[in-house]
Amino acid sequence: MKKTIIGIMGPGKQATPTDLTYAYQLGQLIAQQGWVLLTGGRNVGVMDAASRGAKSAGGLTVGILPDDHPQGVSPGVDLVIITDMGNARNNINVLSSDVVIACGMGSGTASEIALALKNHKSVILLTQHQEAIQFFTNLSRDKVFLATNPKEVIELVKVILSNSA
Amino acid sequence: MKKTIIGIMGPGKQATPTDLTYAYQLGQLIAQQGWVLLTGGRNVGVMDAASRGAKSAGGLTVGILPDDHPQGVSPGVDLVIITDMGNARNNINVLSSDVVIACGMGSGTASEIALALKNHKSVILLTQHQEAIQFFTNLSRDKVFLATNPKEVIELVKVILSNSA
Amino acid sequence: MKKTIIGIMGPGKQATPTDLTYAYQLGQLIAQQGWVLLTGGRNVGVMDAASRGAKSAGGLTVGILPDDHPQGVSPGVDLVIITDMGNARNNINVLSSDVVIACGMGSGTASEIALALKNHKSVILLTQHQEAIQFFTNLSRDKVFLATNPKEVIELVKVILSNSA
Amino acid sequence: MKKTIIGIMGPGKQATPTDLTYAYQLGQLIAQQGWVLLTGGRNVGVMDAASRGAKSAGGLTVGILPDDHPQGVSPGVDLVIITDMGNARNNINVLSSDVVIACGMGSGTASEIALALKNHKSVILLTQHQEAIQFFTNLSRDKVFLATNPKEVIELVKVILSNSA
Repeated sequence: MKKTIIGIMGPGKQATPTDLTYAYQLGQLIAQQGWVLLTGGRNVGVMDAASRGAKSAGGLTVGILPDDHPQGVSPGVDLVIITDMGNARNNINVLSSDVVIACGMGSGTASEIALALKNHKSVILLTQHQEAIQFFTNLSRDKVFLATNPKEVIELVKVILSNSA
Repeated sequence: MKKTIIGIMGPGKQATPTDLTYAYQLGQLIAQQGWVLLTGGRNVGVMDAASRGAKSAGGLTVGILPDDHPQGVSPGVDLVIITDMGNARNNINVLSSDVVIACGMGSGTASEIALALKNHKSVILLTQHQEAIQFFTNLSRDKVFLATNPKEVIELVKVILSNSA
Repeated sequence: MKKTIIGIMGPGKQATPTDLTYAYQLGQLIAQQGWVLLTGGRNVGVMDAASRGAKSAGGLTVGILPDDHPQGVSPGVDLVIITDMGNARNNINVLSSDVVIACGMGSGTASEIALALKNHKSVILLTQHQEAIQFFTNLSRDKVFLATNPKEVIELVKVILSNSA
Repeated sequence: MKKTIIGIMGPGKQATPTDLTYAYQLGQLIAQQGWVLLTGGRNVGVMDAASRGAKSAGGLTVGILPDDHPQGVSPGVDLVIITDMGNARNNINVLSSDVVIACGMGSGTASEIALALKNHKSVILLTQHQEAIQFFTNLSRDKVFLATNPKEVIELVKVILSNSA
């Protein structure tokens, strides 16, 4: 039966130390809830930290790789989905996630938030990037939620899941 | 030999009257320069207006459709590329455009700007959406250009093309 | 850490009773080996039978859906990957599988075998379709393997996995 | 207004001299009919020969590239569509073609024929590969047509187009 999948999107090499700390904690918290973690799968930045966090708490992790091979996958990923679609795989990331969490900001992350909104998915922003917060909340008042730390994110996920159930 | 392709991205049904007027004019100006116009192909909003504008000036137009069939294509599209990829086709739109023009704003358009920047493509914003301008210029100071009318857009395209030649 | 994923491809509504019986048994045997089952995810034909078979044996199952929504997913699928890519998702199916099993035959299955071979993946054919056997063994003598029942398939998977380790 | 697009699929580096001669002639004949030629776009094999043939007769050519960059495009391609989708772009090739011609045989070509049939597209086979002819005609008696030279192919295209109009 379909498991609940929570997606964490965020920068790769451009991730800040705070992004990485939050991503690791989010991965742990998601695993503790019994949810499956989905990321972009590579062994850098937020996707790597979140996957390793989830594994440290015994979770199950899916990585949607942009490449045509499994090299460069995060060691925290259990299920490696190889798309060979480059950044177009970002659309799969958001479609497959029951809730999308953006941890940090960058152009790839922005594309995932925008694609999520285009697909009527709920997105939780965990970022200090004020221009991003203003832009995306302006773009969709219904589907964009703001959090200031990982625990708040998880509470928002619970509310969103219960409303969509 | 490879022709120069200029992409116009913008809202569908949510397009404003100004977006539509500008899109039509941009289509005309692109055709007058001998460039090929590329859009998302559907018969609504900015993609439709731009395609019809380009045809009114004798241009050649490409439409990259999200669907698995040609129904709903703009009558201004000459070459219908059928992707059956939904919004993931937005990545093809920007990869195939030598320069990306965003005319108006919405979540689909935002995804195309973000994907363009992720792919190191230059993007010209023609919008009054201040939060978008601030967000995207903050995201990439090098690759985001601002214009206030279609003629300015075309001048910027010329500069970008000559710098990348 | 990356789990071994075995893909079962086969007809949907056109599946024969033998295809369905074999698919269910293959799902069971894959689960008993501790491998993850990957299919096209829908609630018809070989993908459905294989997923339910794997679940009956306590396995973990991934379904790569062609649609933009989870409706129509097999009840045997745990992890629903939503691609919105139509038949282009067949390429993801084969890229993500360590070994590809074709159980039965049809145009979708044929596309998956051909894409697997194009991507240098090993394919095991479990079919009585003589023209298919002759065509694909002719296309690739190295990567196409033949089996006459599910147990033989599993023995071949073991050999292929040990050779690629 | 939508132009008629004819797709030529065939091997890259594995193309035989006959494949290349036929592909060049098919490109010429397609251009002479006023149809647009669509290929996989790269500068090798059938796609390259067909594109150059079409250009030699003043035709318009589209190339659907698998890569994320325009390098390696055939000099015979006018409109370069950059997909960054690897072999998944084969689905776009067939969906965008009013009629699909397979000139020669290989695993990539086989995937395109199979995807075309899955999408209910008509396919004309121009090949001496007997196993392929038997397999694909067995797979679909309605949608697979056989030709023995480029002129026969063009006559079949005309019949298919007039039946679908």
